[in-house]
Amino acid sequence: MSTEPLKVAVAGLGTVGGGTIKLLQANADVLAERAGRPIVITCVADLDRRDRGFPVDGYVWFDDAVAMARNGDADVVVELIGGSEGVAKAVCEVALAAGRHVVTANKALIAHHGNALARAAEEAGVSLGYEAAVAGAVPIIKALRDGLIANRRRRVYGILNGTCNYILTSMRESGRSFNDVLSEAQALGYAEADPSFDVDGVDSAHKLTILASVAFGCTIDFAATHIEGIRHIAPEDIAFAEELGYRIKLLGIASLTDHGVERRVHPCMVPLSAPIAHIEGVFNAVVADGDFSDTIMQEGRGAGERPTASAVVADIADIACGRSAPTFGVTIAQLAEVPPAEMSRHRGAYYVRLMVVDRPGVFADVATVLRDHDVSMEAVLQRGRSPGEPVPVVMTTHETEESAMVGALGEIAALKAAVEKPVMIRIEPF
Amino acid sequence: MSTEPLKVAVAGLGTVGGGTIKLLQANADVLAERAGRPIVITCVADLDRRDRGFPVDGYVWFDDAVAMARNGDADVVVELIGGSEGVAKAVCEVALAAGRHVVTANKALIAHHGNALARAAEEAGVSLGYEAAVAGAVPIIKALRDGLIANRRRRVYGILNGTCNYILTSMRESGRSFNDVLSEAQALGYAEADPSFDVDGVDSAHKLTILASVAFGCTIDFAATHIEGIRHIAPEDIAFAEELGYRIKLLGIASLTDHGVERRVHPCMVPLSAPIAHIEGVFNAVVADGDFSDTIMQEGRGAGERPTASAVVADIADIACGRSAPTFGVTIAQLAEVPPAEMSRHRGAYYVRLMVVDRPGVFADVATVLRDHDVSMEAVLQRGRSPGEPVPVVMTTHETEESAMVGALGEIAALKAAVEKPVMIRIEPF
Repeated sequence: MSTEPLKVAVAGLGTVGGGTIKLLQANADVLAERAGRPIVITCVADLDRRDRGFPVDGYVWFDDAVAMARNGDADVVVELIGGSEGVAKAVCEVALAAGRHVVTANKALIAHHGNALARAAEEAGVSLGYEAAVAGAVPIIKALRDGLIANRRRRVYGILNGTCNYILTSMRESGRSFNDVLSEAQALGYAEADPSFDVDGVDSAHKLTILASVAFGCTIDFAATHIEGIRHIAPEDIAFAEELGYRIKLLGIASLTDHGVERRVHPCMVPLSAPIAHIEGVFNAVVADGDFSDTIMQEGRGAGERPTASAVVADIADIACGRSAPTFGVTIAQLAEVPPAEMSRHRGAYYVRLMVVDRPGVFADVATVLRDHDVSMEAVLQRGRSPGEPVPVVMTTHETEESAMVGALGEIAALKAAVEKPVMIRIEPF
Repeated sequence: MSTEPLKVAVAGLGTVGGGTIKLLQANADVLAERAGRPIVITCVADLDRRDRGFPVDGYVWFDDAVAMARNGDADVVVELIGGSEGVAKAVCEVALAAGRHVVTANKALIAHHGNALARAAEEAGVSLGYEAAVAGAVPIIKALRDGLIANRRRRVYGILNGTCNYILTSMRESGRSFNDVLSEAQALGYAEADPSFDVDGVDSAHKLTILASVAFGCTIDFAATHIEGIRHIAPEDIAFAEELGYRIKLLGIASLTDHGVERRVHPCMVPLSAPIAHIEGVFNAVVADGDFSDTIMQEGRGAGERPTASAVVADIADIACGRSAPTFGVTIAQLAEVPPAEMSRHRGAYYVRLMVVDRPGVFADVATVLRDHDVSMEAVLQRGRSPGEPVPVVMTTHETEESAMVGALGEIAALKAAVEKPVMIRIEPF
């Protein structure tokens, strides 16, 4: 193993780029000791040369990150620009083509172009590290690839977006609406001005797509991921969930089914007895089920300058130590092309909230539709009576097929007594 | 990297040895794919040749595990005999001296002889893997050494013994005494016939000793670990803890203090808001605090045939992949000789339960002793009155030094009104 310094080029000096540079500066001594060689920054790239509060004078500055990836004096190029296309993608492609290792925190890039980038890394005989792309400081990629390597995986799931978890926690604690809490989260800096990537589930889906590939050794397939966000979750649903012994979490879940790999991101009702129900606020958690390990949960900060830098530098240190693994746990040739499982064939239990006009016979109509679709009810809650007014009716079902549930809800929505689109939340029996 | 099969010798066919062989047989295909080469068992050693329900005919059988470690046709010797001395130790020493990698699940061996074994491994240029020695299937050693490599560690702590956690959980849920619950745990197979290694904290201390070395890069120092078990925990204490917003857990805690490395195993009062308070039953959990990662918690099964085998085989797979790291994260020459922090200088808050005769002036006597030792009370609970009879008085203190607390409790125990030795439980403000 080399004891020469490992030379690192950092592309993008935003939040995570700044954190990475600060970490490599602050902890250079312990890193050199643990990795067996110094890790040194040689060059950085950013369009904006403003002062960021940490010294950069020792580094060669590039305005053009792609030029740095091609010509910089570096063993490793760290891509922290972000976005699935454009400069970020070009930096990684050019670096790999030049035979340099690549480390990135870019989940969108890996979720969209992971197969091609992994192939390029494999052909060049270099590493493509992306620990920071999923769950921030939580070393879940290494856990799946190394620590839990001996297991056949049945399922991997998690709370993958701190913004959504913060909003759901805050809605539960305060009883306020999604929009109110979102505005507050934006004011506090926990949510972006344009929050759609987070609250519509896209960010979680990027991360789940990556987790599924590592867990099951299959190709990256973002398009196969079923995605729902949390905009439709109402305070009533959160209150009914508590009453029924559940907590609502936005989960990403990948599992092996008889129909292929199921990848889905949507709000879930999780029993309060499940440890993941107690992960609150901006924290992330990932649970991996293995045939020998049984259930392993890892929890920590899923975002932020310093936690994300911790994961970025762990990937750099792996390269410094000469530790490597195929990008998604097996070689490109071995990656399985598993068919995606259709969401319509998903089986599970459901929570449904209807707003119906309170008059005789309405519930019989609803029950008839469910029976006609072979959906079996487990429990019904109806609170208060307001003859002639809309009232909530809440039901939970026994396990049924998604297609049957969707069909039944379509007919129920068309009933004259139904005054709103029914709310449906899947129940996960962890 | 070699693509030749990695040859494995397994010493000890008890619970974990059996699990390891079953795993290597059942998951040989995925392991070969992920590790890039087959992992094959070549020989096994045990004194007892009885049928264990899995095939062993393809392996060379040794009655003498040490002879196998010396002469067996193996790249890796897996020591699953147990015990800190005798055959287990000899197997590891002989295997390392013969230039073979060693993998073990033996926490007592590493906690007592880890420094010498790590030195022998380093001199031979081979790996010494012990992931399975701490927290079963939870890959905490790799997480500290690889995934969280970039962090200066402030503290590492955890629930490290499933038997104790099961007993404490069961005492809380049922309100029964330690002895009752222990008998039940023994009948269910959750506790050994001789439970002292578990319930007196020794097993947790072995694991904490190892965690401290990996977290802080310091030499193994079992003798420096302060150890208390759970025999003295009474149902009253568990009930008072709940009333005060705490849960009682047996924790192992290692932290860097101004006086050196503090290593301690004892029952703790943990606030209910801390995720670790909710780890119940036989589960283990380990929390690592890093300067960049912040708090990372990992939870899973800490014992048992299959979870422990998952960790043993992860170490074997690391060797198959050519991934290595210094045994305790840095080389032997770099391991720090940090002085152990004296427990008498520990600072923290305390819960104290006294049984005192209920008569005027007793509380004034207690308060005077505390004042004389500079111990500041935070809260006092006294339930019920029984003039002339013993009643519990419960107090919590502000942060104070252990020596002051111990001095005060010695004087309080000597008061005429004190009818039992005071119970003291440290409060951890996670």
